[in-house]
Amino acid sequence: MPPSASSTAFADLVNDNFLRACRRQATEHTPLWLMRQAGRYLSEYRATRAKAGSFMGLATNPEFATEVTLQPLERFPLDAAILFSDILTVPDAMGLGLSFAEGEGPRFAHPLRDEAAVAKLAVPDLDKLRYVFDAVTSIRKALNGRVPLIGFSGSPWTLACYMVEGAGSDDYRLVKTMLYARPDLMHRILAINADAVAAYLNAQIAAGAQAVMVFDSWGGVLADGAFQDFSLAYTRRVLERLDRSVPAIVFTKGGGPWLEAIADSGADVVGLDWTVNLAAARRRVANRVALQGNLDPMVLFGGEAAVRAEARRVLDDFGAGPGHVFNLGHGIHQHTPPEAVAALVDEVHSHSRRQRTAR
Amino acid sequence: MPPSASSTAFADLVNDNFLRACRRQATEHTPLWLMRQAGRYLSEYRATRAKAGSFMGLATNPEFATEVTLQPLERFPLDAAILFSDILTVPDAMGLGLSFAEGEGPRFAHPLRDEAAVAKLAVPDLDKLRYVFDAVTSIRKALNGRVPLIGFSGSPWTLACYMVEGAGSDDYRLVKTMLYARPDLMHRILAINADAVAAYLNAQIAAGAQAVMVFDSWGGVLADGAFQDFSLAYTRRVLERLDRSVPAIVFTKGGGPWLEAIADSGADVVGLDWTVNLAAARRRVANRVALQGNLDPMVLFGGEAAVRAEARRVLDDFGAGPGHVFNLGHGIHQHTPPEAVAALVDEVHSHSRRQRTAR
Repeated sequence: MPPSASSTAFADLVNDNFLRACRRQATEHTPLWLMRQAGRYLSEYRATRAKAGSFMGLATNPEFATEVTLQPLERFPLDAAILFSDILTVPDAMGLGLSFAEGEGPRFAHPLRDEAAVAKLAVPDLDKLRYVFDAVTSIRKALNGRVPLIGFSGSPWTLACYMVEGAGSDDYRLVKTMLYARPDLMHRILAINADAVAAYLNAQIAAGAQAVMVFDSWGGVLADGAFQDFSLAYTRRVLERLDRSVPAIVFTKGGGPWLEAIADSGADVVGLDWTVNLAAARRRVANRVALQGNLDPMVLFGGEAAVRAEARRVLDDFGAGPGHVFNLGHGIHQHTPPEAVAALVDEVHSHSRRQRTAR
Repeated sequence: MPPSASSTAFADLVNDNFLRACRRQATEHTPLWLMRQAGRYLSEYRATRAKAGSFMGLATNPEFATEVTLQPLERFPLDAAILFSDILTVPDAMGLGLSFAEGEGPRFAHPLRDEAAVAKLAVPDLDKLRYVFDAVTSIRKALNGRVPLIGFSGSPWTLACYMVEGAGSDDYRLVKTMLYARPDLMHRILAINADAVAAYLNAQIAAGAQAVMVFDSWGGVLADGAFQDFSLAYTRRVLERLDRSVPAIVFTKGGGPWLEAIADSGADVVGLDWTVNLAAARRRVANRVALQGNLDPMVLFGGEAAVRAEARRVLDDFGAGPGHVFNLGHGIHQHTPPEAVAALVDEVHSHSRRQRTAR
């Protein structure tokens, strides 16, 4: 079971803007962090990754995971840290046999392709994921109260996509075939995933995570109707089982069509991709949730003037008032120039401070 | 220039349900056709493709193009035919050097990567596309009035994606880098593309096309704001220049967030992908346009009961009243079992007739 890590064991928070924004409380500037902020676009990450030998070597070693989690904070005054890990740790602990071939995406040795495989699936022993909880505690200590630490998991549906496909997919044919042909099997996988994800996130919270995020990276590939029944219903099941002493963020890439329903799922914060206008989104969710997002990561390739102009556009679209966490609409690209991130962080902080003065 | 083909040269239409639905007029059943209905899921297509030797060998030969366009109509009582061609014929005629390597997607030998390449770009001589207009006339004659013939083109933005990337992409980094770093170059490409697409579609109409469709397949990858400025503005420019004696359909995959704006572009019909609920979409567009869509193509892998149930769900979501063209939310998948298509066509026709009786 996860190590017990009562909050008294950790330093007080110095910068709590992120947590305040998640709770829709006033902040001195709009806080920001970037999905995949610890990653290949940083040379120091690539150096640690080389030491670790492999991606999983990095993710399963709490010392390395701590090192890379803190790297972007050394470069940029970001307002939150996020656990360095992978969304597929949970199905790996279920026995599906995760591997990362060099230059390719993740792959499972034992994907769920038939009724027998689904029948054997069970919530994993959390002890198999102790390396994650150890990393959370180690990072939280290393942060020493500088900024809050976000824990995370894939959503039940997103995990199921990988578990059935066995790898990434561009059409989701296998998992959708199961969904439409054998909804009973799909519901069984999703119920087990939901219970596993809830236990996994609660253990991260117990280990020191100060917020948690559910990545529904592939919710947006589902049809209207199927999204509600096969993705959102199980995200909701996760949220119902969570320790709600910390804020919960739900990010559905391509989830714009269902924004109102996602805002009603029990999340404190809804993450948005870059196709959604923040002013319109804010009207749609009223005051139910905070919003996180939503700059197109490709803006960071457009040069400093474009980065600053597009960052202001996102901030101005959200407008005045609390409840905005600035982020990209998807993970940062591996070829992003780090100086573009520096300009982005500076513009978000300075422009959002000006917004507060102008009010 | 395109062959002149006045409507008097062709047989009268027997089944005009598709055209009537595009105009929001009453129909005896909800008409349907399927994006990529002539394609690899049909063994007879694969046989013709083998005779032609290559994809472009097929697309550039009006006799073969006619043969494959009519093949799905021999199997299924579909309500429209669509020209067999490719969206990249226009940039090919611009001199970018299109090729299709076996088992891969399209590729351009001379992508637009710098200012000099963009400066040289021009609206192509339509005579280079005569094979397309010849195919339109040949197909229209072969149809002999059975169902209407739809012509099509890629949208200015979607063509630009391929023209800059040089091939398919999963992050659109090159084209978005140009968009954000050199919007002047991007606007020049898009203006030329818009004029070329308008001339191309008008020539298809002159050759016998009874409706035209603009495929904005990659509009949905753009950020809010960028979509309006770099995709929709140029689709609108195409529509403004079109011969409007035939209905124009605009399909933006992932365009749900901007449905109202797309409905105001001048299109008669707006195509929708499967993430959009048709009842909600209908409320959003009021009575401005007809709607086309939007079954997830993967439903066709779920077995006959699922196909029929999901087809009914789409029809019931749209509800009573005119202005619905049933389609998939994207092209049919190459591994689709043809018997699933037979069940789909039967269910759409029979259930929509029952809807009309129940009213």
